[in-house]
Amino acid sequence: MDNAPDALDTRGWEVIDRRLLVDRSPYAKVFDEDVRLPDGSVITNFVRVELPPFIIVFTQMVDSRIAFVRQYRQAIQGYTFELPAGHVEPDEDPLDAARRELREEAGIEASDWGFLGKYVMDANRQCGWAYVYLAQGGRQVATPDPGDLGVMTLHLFDRDEVRRMWQNGELVSAPTALAVGLGLEKLAT
Amino acid sequence: MDNAPDALDTRGWEVIDRRLLVDRSPYAKVFDEDVRLPDGSVITNFVRVELPPFIIVFTQMVDSRIAFVRQYRQAIQGYTFELPAGHVEPDEDPLDAARRELREEAGIEASDWGFLGKYVMDANRQCGWAYVYLAQGGRQVATPDPGDLGVMTLHLFDRDEVRRMWQNGELVSAPTALAVGLGLEKLAT
Repeated sequence: MDNAPDALDTRGWEVIDRRLLVDRSPYAKVFDEDVRLPDGSVITNFVRVELPPFIIVFTQMVDSRIAFVRQYRQAIQGYTFELPAGHVEPDEDPLDAARRELREEAGIEASDWGFLGKYVMDANRQCGWAYVYLAQGGRQVATPDPGDLGVMTLHLFDRDEVRRMWQNGELVSAPTALAVGLGLEKLAT
Repeated sequence: MDNAPDALDTRGWEVIDRRLLVDRSPYAKVFDEDVRLPDGSVITNFVRVELPPFIIVFTQMVDSRIAFVRQYRQAIQGYTFELPAGHVEPDEDPLDAARRELREEAGIEASDWGFLGKYVMDANRQCGWAYVYLAQGGRQVATPDPGDLGVMTLHLFDRDEVRRMWQNGELVSAPTALAVGLGLEKLAT
């Protein structure tokens, strides 16, 4: 039932050459990479999409509701409910970025913070790393800042409603669905 | 506690212009888009990264173990445990792609299939849509095909071990962590 070898392969790929195709720093860089595999074969023009690291926060308020933001999203040409999220600035600690974005996007400060892991959005291309946090004891301390990409509104949902939306596939943004699963699990254990 | 307006905004962005920057079809296309927001402001060079749709399958075998594959991943420069996954071919039904990839990558056929939703990997840039499936009644019917990107091996884990890896952040590939959360939830309900 299992074809795993006794000793797991640990041989990596060697990057032979790398060519910058697009530079839209700090938002995106796209490269072609030529790589040599352990068996000696070469893959050319293996596309690498470097997007900046970002944080995403599953926030439980003091009344136990979960904080979401709603905004227009160009990739899906529609509005979504998502967890507060944002880029990590250069030299910024991801936890500091999480506190900052939660305050900026949602006007929320939280008393307790936990880390739920870091995840690469595309294991071939990269497409950014997500740092996922659980924040508890959230309190509204400021008016949310809609940001520079149009109207963003804050919405608070009961945990059962969040679970229902997650189970039903209504949370179509992958980082949100990933972080909601981890957050609900952590709160339940 | 909630700044949601009574009537939710439904106004979209208008794409004014779109310029192809990179064409590595069928693997990746990168565009600059100029978009006009509902308030009339214009954003230029909003990067869009079109990656092909893909499927990912949370597979429970007849002995109740969960199927993973292990392979080298260039984005993290190391080996990962991930759920079987792969691109949807043009004009291919995503469920057919899921059956095909599970058979090709893992040598497994499953008797029962359920859909756990579709998710955009990046709500700004796109970076591909993931179609997530739950397969049950999995049986090993063929030798796994390692594919053309090096050695891939099949590994079967007990559900408790899968939950532990997921909770601990060991499943660093975002589509896998997303699909594991949804799959475990579905099996528990």
